[in-house]
Amino acid sequence: MRADRLEAAKRAAAERASALVRSGQVVGLGSGSTMALVVEALAKRAEGEGLRAEFVPSSYQIQLLAIEKGLRIVDFMGVDGIDLAIDGADQVDRELNLVKGGGGALTREKIIDAFASELVVVVDEGKLSDRLGIGQPIPIEVLPFALPLAIREVKRIGGKPSLRFGTGKVGPVVTDNGGLILDADFGPIADPKRLEAELKSIPGVVETGIFAGMARRVYVGRADGTVEVLER
Amino acid sequence: MRADRLEAAKRAAAERASALVRSGQVVGLGSGSTMALVVEALAKRAEGEGLRAEFVPSSYQIQLLAIEKGLRIVDFMGVDGIDLAIDGADQVDRELNLVKGGGGALTREKIIDAFASELVVVVDEGKLSDRLGIGQPIPIEVLPFALPLAIREVKRIGGKPSLRFGTGKVGPVVTDNGGLILDADFGPIADPKRLEAELKSIPGVVETGIFAGMARRVYVGRADGTVEVLER
Repeated sequence: MRADRLEAAKRAAAERASALVRSGQVVGLGSGSTMALVVEALAKRAEGEGLRAEFVPSSYQIQLLAIEKGLRIVDFMGVDGIDLAIDGADQVDRELNLVKGGGGALTREKIIDAFASELVVVVDEGKLSDRLGIGQPIPIEVLPFALPLAIREVKRIGGKPSLRFGTGKVGPVVTDNGGLILDADFGPIADPKRLEAELKSIPGVVETGIFAGMARRVYVGRADGTVEVLER
Repeated sequence: MRADRLEAAKRAAAERASALVRSGQVVGLGSGSTMALVVEALAKRAEGEGLRAEFVPSSYQIQLLAIEKGLRIVDFMGVDGIDLAIDGADQVDRELNLVKGGGGALTREKIIDAFASELVVVVDEGKLSDRLGIGQPIPIEVLPFALPLAIREVKRIGGKPSLRFGTGKVGPVVTDNGGLILDADFGPIADPKRLEAELKSIPGVVETGIFAGMARRVYVGRADGTVEVLER
């Protein structure tokens, strides 16, 4: 029952975020299961109210889904700007810093979110945390060639890295960019911005799942069925 | 004549650096034309004195050359450490900060150089400069997907980026990692370490050609035919 209400509230939060999009805008789409709800809500608006926007996808997952739902996809290389990015998150702290990358799409998500004029995020309340890193490893995308160095350096700065494996192919997960993913447990993180910079400075680290200071607004689906809006 | 003497001095510098290698060591090999001289000198030592070391290459270029010359190549993923890395550079300042990446191998070079216990560099005196960035653009490897963001952000922090083109294929140069290269003119660079961190923090920037604080010793071939050793 509680899980059903939480799912319904997450869908309501996805609809609230989708309602921000206006015709004529270029909109970045994050990836993951919550973003699938956003795409559904956008498709409903396109059909019901004739919303005409263009979308830049952050992964094959959301690109395929958006095409299936009839949304107009544009090539990131061809846009002048992105008016708004909508994205999910694995963890959100009180300053709206995020951990992302459970779905392995962190790098393109961060590129799109950084390019966008505004980033709004959709989560359920289970993703809120006093601090990033509590029960939540930090996904780190690395060049395959850099694996030995990345593992050594992540350990040196206090993380416990493990190489991510999946299904559908042998060996480690390979991202849409051809990278590998280390999930690194740092425990509670005192200074996300600093850890983000430290990790990124390791040669061969392509991107980290810490998104510090990027989200302006977070729509939270509550277990009581309501949607809370966090802003900074 | 002067060019001949400089080339001979560069070869002598390459031989001096190669003389540091001892049997049983694991040695990282940078890329480029100077490193080709290093590989030749190492091959001569393997044949002449029976030097037995193992080598980790930073590019297809130097890997193919090392194999051709009979050096023993090992997989970076299988080594416990790298005792010594030998590399070239496009520019060297008074603190032994480097600009690298003219050959497009900057990322794997930086990974290997960072993993190594010690980095020594071989250049001719034409590469010495009071400051990095004087008449020398900074190569930046980016994910193809990140190109629009990388161009915007490099401009925002004061660089003039241009996408690198080559020959042998249409369109921009693609690196051994599948990345693209922006050559960004920043003029004279006051604080290389800071610019390196700023550039790397751009989402989708894989690596920069600024190697700050990494080289311990630089062997410089002088136009008068001598080899000068710079240390810090």
